[in-house]
Amino acid sequence: MSKSRMEAFSDGVIAIIITIMVLEMKAPHGADWEALQPVIPELLSYVLSFVFVGIYWNNHHHLLQAVRRVSGGVLWANLHLLFWLSLTPFVTNWMGENCTAALPVALYGAVLLCAGIAYYILAHVLIAQHGADSQLAAALGRDIKGKASVAFYMAAIPLAFVATWLAYGLYVLVAIMWLVPDRRIEKVLANRGE
Amino acid sequence: MSKSRMEAFSDGVIAIIITIMVLEMKAPHGADWEALQPVIPELLSYVLSFVFVGIYWNNHHHLLQAVRRVSGGVLWANLHLLFWLSLTPFVTNWMGENCTAALPVALYGAVLLCAGIAYYILAHVLIAQHGADSQLAAALGRDIKGKASVAFYMAAIPLAFVATWLAYGLYVLVAIMWLVPDRRIEKVLANRGE
Amino acid sequence: MSKSRMEAFSDGVIAIIITIMVLEMKAPHGADWEALQPVIPELLSYVLSFVFVGIYWNNHHHLLQAVRRVSGGVLWANLHLLFWLSLTPFVTNWMGENCTAALPVALYGAVLLCAGIAYYILAHVLIAQHGADSQLAAALGRDIKGKASVAFYMAAIPLAFVATWLAYGLYVLVAIMWLVPDRRIEKVLANRGE
Amino acid sequence: MSKSRMEAFSDGVIAIIITIMVLEMKAPHGADWEALQPVIPELLSYVLSFVFVGIYWNNHHHLLQAVRRVSGGVLWANLHLLFWLSLTPFVTNWMGENCTAALPVALYGAVLLCAGIAYYILAHVLIAQHGADSQLAAALGRDIKGKASVAFYMAAIPLAFVATWLAYGLYVLVAIMWLVPDRRIEKVLANRGE
Repeated sequence: MSKSRMEAFSDGVIAIIITIMVLEMKAPHGADWEALQPVIPELLSYVLSFVFVGIYWNNHHHLLQAVRRVSGGVLWANLHLLFWLSLTPFVTNWMGENCTAALPVALYGAVLLCAGIAYYILAHVLIAQHGADSQLAAALGRDIKGKASVAFYMAAIPLAFVATWLAYGLYVLVAIMWLVPDRRIEKVLANRGE
Repeated sequence: MSKSRMEAFSDGVIAIIITIMVLEMKAPHGADWEALQPVIPELLSYVLSFVFVGIYWNNHHHLLQAVRRVSGGVLWANLHLLFWLSLTPFVTNWMGENCTAALPVALYGAVLLCAGIAYYILAHVLIAQHGADSQLAAALGRDIKGKASVAFYMAAIPLAFVATWLAYGLYVLVAIMWLVPDRRIEKVLANRGE
Repeated sequence: MSKSRMEAFSDGVIAIIITIMVLEMKAPHGADWEALQPVIPELLSYVLSFVFVGIYWNNHHHLLQAVRRVSGGVLWANLHLLFWLSLTPFVTNWMGENCTAALPVALYGAVLLCAGIAYYILAHVLIAQHGADSQLAAALGRDIKGKASVAFYMAAIPLAFVATWLAYGLYVLVAIMWLVPDRRIEKVLANRGE
Repeated sequence: MSKSRMEAFSDGVIAIIITIMVLEMKAPHGADWEALQPVIPELLSYVLSFVFVGIYWNNHHHLLQAVRRVSGGVLWANLHLLFWLSLTPFVTNWMGENCTAALPVALYGAVLLCAGIAYYILAHVLIAQHGADSQLAAALGRDIKGKASVAFYMAAIPLAFVATWLAYGLYVLVAIMWLVPDRRIEKVLANRGE
């Protein structure tokens, strides 16, 4: 089976997820700075989610570059990842409206955690299919960032009930960890591509 | 006529359908567990519809892999399928808000039934074009799952008025039937591809 | 310039237009037949618009098949068509909620008329670029259906103020005219393709 | 890394942005001309934003035509541009509802300004990768239009607080500047392509 339609479908779903979140930022009724203030936490949670969904798209893009063929199981592992990502707008919106409450902040982390686990499953279904000595397995490596993200989300969920800023801090930390360029992975891909 | 644009358009429409359903899950006004409770039936009906739309996308993907060319009639048979799928968000939302009422549960089944029939029509328009001895006809086979799904939906509609959980049971049964991997179809495709 | 990205972008926009219209069909608050009744005119206007947007997608698909290259002018002529199509959800919704009032029914026709004119402009910009003796010009022919549609929309706008059913009749007539297969065009394309 | 998925993802996001803005134009409750009047400023701000997003899509299309390869940095520079474009529906809606107030008109310009800067960054990340003597650098040239747009947005933001029509005038001016065909760029591309 060709991977191109799975890529196109994933691009479509992720493009919609990353864009519809902005629909929840309703235009304020007034037209002055005061009316704009309640939008600020919504905007910040939108920025955070935009970065997270962007990270998943980037990683998905990298992961599938080294993929040769997809099976029915891969299609479902991919849909499973897209399902958790599709809950992002809901939790983003809830957290944006209740930015100081523990439960929305914890639930946000829980959805990110499930998406992280779903990505891990997808990567390992693909490696099982391509073999442990494939270019794909080499490119993914030990996936330290992926495992660290899952650990940080796991820590953030209970910490949100202690103090929300601890959970926020961990979310921002994960985002920064992925935004910093990782030349090692690109190098492996470049070397193997030769 | 090339099939690539029909695939791209279908991917776009299905990606939007599967994603916009989440927009109907409005963020609760409170920030505690109690406020989250009314969202649970909405979430469950979203999961069910996500799986159904995912099944259609998977099947559509499989079906079109063996397609060589498309005619104007195929484009309309495809749009007909997309029309019924596009009603999924509406019935999902209505059922999610009225999960114990017979009519929304029955209407949900009716839309799934029409989508099932539309898929059957699309498959047979394609087979008529490619010939009964084509790879496409072989890959589809007797399409027992497709016919069983239509029969289950037909049974679920009146059963919803007897007891809604009977209809829900049948919907979940159909979903599980498709989620269980079907090695037979992939084998036929693999064999013929040699 | 390659035409593939213009096709992909148009597919995306048309897929979104055809799908978001269903978002305006809000789930009724009750759960019985009575609660479902106000949805019926909205559903019918959705069906009509789904068919119209489907026709445009089909025609766009056919038109671009014979296109070799696109210029900056073609990109804008295409965006101009997409603009009028993007107003379809707005007028569909307004007509669905006010199905017996003259103005919404007339405005619906006006948007269809503008989309028809925009399609005509796009086709002629493409023909100007490819030459009057190109496969594209032959495939489009005298475009009797396109011209008849524009004439019917022009008639429907004032007729909506006489009696709305006259305008509805014309809209349905145009839709049927396009749905009936037109073997002549496919033949020209097939002949020229040899 | 191949550029095709980045193009497909950008097409998806821009297609959604350009289309969902119309969702904010709610169907009026009445069915006469009077009920339609509050929609007019919303329609005008929709038209303006449709043109601006269309310009970005066109420029993005041109820019990527000459691109050979993309890096992780390019993916993020592209996502950065998409982020600012994704705020367009929000500011369009706010400006449409408060068309005579200074702050919404100024904020609209600020989002356009940030998108313009993000486009400039993307173009320069790409040129840094391809070299100053590449076809890409030649096609972009001195990018006078891009720099003028940024200057006009910078002027429009304070001017909105003096008189909103001054800011509107500058926005329309920028739109017209881009709509007028620019044969010079197409020529360079055509010459270099030989």
